[in-house]
Amino acid sequence: MTVLVGIIMGSTSDWETMRFAAEKLEQFGIAHEVEVVSAHRTPDKLFAYADAAESRGLEVIIAGAGGAAHLPGMVAAKTAVPVLGVPIQSKALNGMDSLLSIVQMPAGIPVGTLAIGKAGAINAALLAAAIVGNKYPEYREVLQLFRQQQTDTVLANADPRSVK
Amino acid sequence: MTVLVGIIMGSTSDWETMRFAAEKLEQFGIAHEVEVVSAHRTPDKLFAYADAAESRGLEVIIAGAGGAAHLPGMVAAKTAVPVLGVPIQSKALNGMDSLLSIVQMPAGIPVGTLAIGKAGAINAALLAAAIVGNKYPEYREVLQLFRQQQTDTVLANADPRSVK
Amino acid sequence: MTVLVGIIMGSTSDWETMRFAAEKLEQFGIAHEVEVVSAHRTPDKLFAYADAAESRGLEVIIAGAGGAAHLPGMVAAKTAVPVLGVPIQSKALNGMDSLLSIVQMPAGIPVGTLAIGKAGAINAALLAAAIVGNKYPEYREVLQLFRQQQTDTVLANADPRSVK
Amino acid sequence: MTVLVGIIMGSTSDWETMRFAAEKLEQFGIAHEVEVVSAHRTPDKLFAYADAAESRGLEVIIAGAGGAAHLPGMVAAKTAVPVLGVPIQSKALNGMDSLLSIVQMPAGIPVGTLAIGKAGAINAALLAAAIVGNKYPEYREVLQLFRQQQTDTVLANADPRSVK
Amino acid sequence: MTVLVGIIMGSTSDWETMRFAAEKLEQFGIAHEVEVVSAHRTPDKLFAYADAAESRGLEVIIAGAGGAAHLPGMVAAKTAVPVLGVPIQSKALNGMDSLLSIVQMPAGIPVGTLAIGKAGAINAALLAAAIVGNKYPEYREVLQLFRQQQTDTVLANADPRSVK
Amino acid sequence: MTVLVGIIMGSTSDWETMRFAAEKLEQFGIAHEVEVVSAHRTPDKLFAYADAAESRGLEVIIAGAGGAAHLPGMVAAKTAVPVLGVPIQSKALNGMDSLLSIVQMPAGIPVGTLAIGKAGAINAALLAAAIVGNKYPEYREVLQLFRQQQTDTVLANADPRSVK
Amino acid sequence: MTVLVGIIMGSTSDWETMRFAAEKLEQFGIAHEVEVVSAHRTPDKLFAYADAAESRGLEVIIAGAGGAAHLPGMVAAKTAVPVLGVPIQSKALNGMDSLLSIVQMPAGIPVGTLAIGKAGAINAALLAAAIVGNKYPEYREVLQLFRQQQTDTVLANADPRSVK
Amino acid sequence: MTVLVGIIMGSTSDWETMRFAAEKLEQFGIAHEVEVVSAHRTPDKLFAYADAAESRGLEVIIAGAGGAAHLPGMVAAKTAVPVLGVPIQSKALNGMDSLLSIVQMPAGIPVGTLAIGKAGAINAALLAAAIVGNKYPEYREVLQLFRQQQTDTVLANADPRSVK
Repeated sequence: MTVLVGIIMGSTSDWETMRFAAEKLEQFGIAHEVEVVSAHRTPDKLFAYADAAESRGLEVIIAGAGGAAHLPGMVAAKTAVPVLGVPIQSKALNGMDSLLSIVQMPAGIPVGTLAIGKAGAINAALLAAAIVGNKYPEYREVLQLFRQQQTDTVLANADPRSVK
Repeated sequence: MTVLVGIIMGSTSDWETMRFAAEKLEQFGIAHEVEVVSAHRTPDKLFAYADAAESRGLEVIIAGAGGAAHLPGMVAAKTAVPVLGVPIQSKALNGMDSLLSIVQMPAGIPVGTLAIGKAGAINAALLAAAIVGNKYPEYREVLQLFRQQQTDTVLANADPRSVK
Repeated sequence: MTVLVGIIMGSTSDWETMRFAAEKLEQFGIAHEVEVVSAHRTPDKLFAYADAAESRGLEVIIAGAGGAAHLPGMVAAKTAVPVLGVPIQSKALNGMDSLLSIVQMPAGIPVGTLAIGKAGAINAALLAAAIVGNKYPEYREVLQLFRQQQTDTVLANADPRSVK
Repeated sequence: MTVLVGIIMGSTSDWETMRFAAEKLEQFGIAHEVEVVSAHRTPDKLFAYADAAESRGLEVIIAGAGGAAHLPGMVAAKTAVPVLGVPIQSKALNGMDSLLSIVQMPAGIPVGTLAIGKAGAINAALLAAAIVGNKYPEYREVLQLFRQQQTDTVLANADPRSVK
Repeated sequence: MTVLVGIIMGSTSDWETMRFAAEKLEQFGIAHEVEVVSAHRTPDKLFAYADAAESRGLEVIIAGAGGAAHLPGMVAAKTAVPVLGVPIQSKALNGMDSLLSIVQMPAGIPVGTLAIGKAGAINAALLAAAIVGNKYPEYREVLQLFRQQQTDTVLANADPRSVK
Repeated sequence: MTVLVGIIMGSTSDWETMRFAAEKLEQFGIAHEVEVVSAHRTPDKLFAYADAAESRGLEVIIAGAGGAAHLPGMVAAKTAVPVLGVPIQSKALNGMDSLLSIVQMPAGIPVGTLAIGKAGAINAALLAAAIVGNKYPEYREVLQLFRQQQTDTVLANADPRSVK
Repeated sequence: MTVLVGIIMGSTSDWETMRFAAEKLEQFGIAHEVEVVSAHRTPDKLFAYADAAESRGLEVIIAGAGGAAHLPGMVAAKTAVPVLGVPIQSKALNGMDSLLSIVQMPAGIPVGTLAIGKAGAINAALLAAAIVGNKYPEYREVLQLFRQQQTDTVLANADPRSVK
Repeated sequence: MTVLVGIIMGSTSDWETMRFAAEKLEQFGIAHEVEVVSAHRTPDKLFAYADAAESRGLEVIIAGAGGAAHLPGMVAAKTAVPVLGVPIQSKALNGMDSLLSIVQMPAGIPVGTLAIGKAGAINAALLAAAIVGNKYPEYREVLQLFRQQQTDTVLANADPRSVK
């Protein structure tokens, strides 16, 4: 099965955040790969990864990075495949630096940016599913099912006093 | 030709920003529509728009809004079509309120967020082109051509002293 | 006894904050209800709740939400009943995102916003009591009694060195 | 006709913002008064105003102030009448100081805070109308009519390209 | 011995910060008093305290408060005695709200503001000592001695590797 | 007449802000001097100025600076005379950098910080007047007269609609 | 004469800021070059530039960029030549995004960051001069002369009232 | 062996951050010294240190400080030796105050600023190595070796799931 989504991150320590993206794609049955690609410490690998992305069949790249987070934007600079960015919560500035470094891309090279941290990682997977769902109806269906279950769960737990 | 991208915005005053998204899609030949849909002043229209989006054939929705910018997130809450958010530069807080209101979505409902203002509007169109390009190769080609020209233009103007 | 105040929140995890609003209304003897209503995961319930609020007799709605906090503003978009918003303290940005997402509403649809977190939840209840106190003098009296006791307690503990 | 809403502000220069609150109440036919009351330069007047508010029949106080904006919170400290705060856009910090000084009230004394600047002033009037509408059905009706017209206007101008 | 410095704070919980101001004045032998005075919960006491300050012989008032910190500014509004403000570190916003609420006073009523938290409390005492030292040479001397010792201590511990 | 207050600033461009401090002291008849002393470009002069301050009879030093504003803190490091700091509104960050650079002094060396910009400059003069007023009753009287007139002016202009 | 300093920038529009770096190096007689190199639009040129920097004899690279400013960090990722970063003042966020994107580099790849805007560009040239001055004493001398003149100019204009 | 790099810091408590700079220089075999020099508590030592730096042979000074961090800028004001600044993560504001106090230097006196905290300390050492590497090829080689190893380590740990 062709890998459709590449999940990359700047450091192994980002995995505790980015694994939530991988888990969600796993749950959806969307073929994906995970890889540490550091913009600053392995720039050549970053370029090689981005250069090959389209021909390898990737249809979405999810890139997580923290601090001066250059990974998502630099991947986007090297490929026409849609790139989604996940700002990792940084130590001193709580991810505000990560967020601005990812979202404030200049005109010409876009990165679709998600929320800081775990929620952003989960949502990157959901947005990736929505994107591939345009072309592969089975993933649209899987996403809709997930969304319906999510709604049902909230509806079923409407009384906050009864929930632990 | 089926409309693939819907561009919506919370107010007619957002058009001066969002028109850059429309112009770029126009340039790319990607069929799109533009519409004012206010989350706060026309909530029912917002829900109707989002509910119909998938069956009408929309494959990407670009939503621009400012301040307590709820439009992108609420559209995303009502459709499985990918939603991209453009934070409009607000008067007092320069769009920081718009940005946080759009990007900090909780896990479960994603909005792919672009930069504040004009750059974000342009990039929303470019990301939409990248997304539809997965399914329609002609748009991938158009995007790559644009990207190449963009690169060529910068390369051709490498001496900043010679540029007005 | 007619329920006068509805307390809603975006997630069961918000209850640890919002319960302070409920406790205060309980203490004041003001009939109220609590309910999880997620703007993003249960948007239809949100609309139904807001649509029915006035006819059900609600005179104040207190809505707590965190991050890209759309619940208070979207409820306010669907009802003419006064809406008070409580920004939940979020993980990465400490509730600054919640605050701006709630308070920076555009002209036309107001949300009376309280402080981030527990103090905001308590104060939402106090403001609700002040509002219903306009019409029901017994609640005005209860509120004034509470206020007097609050003052007396501070006056009685004027020496900070003697307090644990 | 009894004055129901008091609009106060810290400085005559705040009138260019606060007049939007007065205009809206005027439009709604809700009796109101406007007055400059400076927390810092006329503290005794502030206390006298707040002390008399309830007995004079005021049911809502709208207080606008900028910078270290103490007026709304100090009025609220002296009356059980609901107080709404409007953060004036300040010169250096664009109203972020005003907003935090008003909204971050400690538990015990609430101020229902609106958006920074003109939108906040308009919305303070709308929220005041919603509050008095609980007791005086004619104002609820007026508010609902305004809301409907507001919605109709947005619906009638759905094409941003046709609007100047 | 006449009390020269009054230390007030908005809540007994502020004592864990403000006690560092008291300890320093104690160490300097400058007569002082400590008192909880809440701007919001005991506004009348606040006014009475400020009104009597000058006639009671106070030459400096140190006021600590957190969040929408109105205590220092309101005391300053009611007395010509110099007022120093200490922003207490708040829970959600780490004292940024406290700082802006205290320092951004409008022209006409000054508050000399110190750093957020413990350092600010210590420095408020040091600044108070500097102020009373203008009139009472013995306190100037005590302050200079403290400053010299402080310098000597740093000089004596110049090698960071040898310090625990 | 002995100069009691020294007004220093980091650059001649700061004069457009700091002149408001000088004007107020002029109005109060408090002998003062004004001088450009750059912490970064004339550090030796800064040290000489601070070293001589006490023996020259200065009882308050007002220091204005912008950006990485080191002048107030470094003067304070070299003298036991009370130092007041005025954060100049900077170009990019609107004085937030100036404010934090001045107010966040570590324990041991205080700077009494006023608001950003013109209001801060005026208030530095008012606080200086309050400080010297402890020792020289004539300045206390002048300050109280000013305060009374300030109050009277606000009271006399209570209707914002009648003021241009 | 070997070019010692390379000045690069992400866009021709950055020249209005970066020219101040070039002017200062020109004044110091330090051989330099200027070039537009966009991290996002000409990533391959960026890598080629950085790869060749050391062998071409560059001893300092000054890189200016705005928004999600990746240029300085990515150049630094590809060369061991010291890289200095100048955050360009961006439209919406005044350069705070540029600053954080440049300065918050992860451990392993440093960028010596200067102030936002024109001051940062000038100072990048001064720091470059200090760096090359370690090896080439003539530039150390030139820098010291400049510093002395700078000091003399401030000393000669000590009275702010006499300066236009 | 001549000491090439001086590492100074404002307080012994900064050592837990700054020791990472020392360790890296140790690893590179670059002769260095460490010293506590407080801008505020030992200003004369600061000036003496900076005055002697060049004649003592220092080629880079690394200065770490927190809060109103004046040490790097004041050292830079007194020497033409390149100064690198490390913002220490402060308690209340997480180092944002430290960062702005160091980086926002006015035109004329540069400080090359690194990231907040440990990453900044490490990177200050790496940038110092890059700077001295211009003159002493052996340090350039050591730095390049370190960089290569760093890259190799990341490449060897490309699968985040296999790393603890």
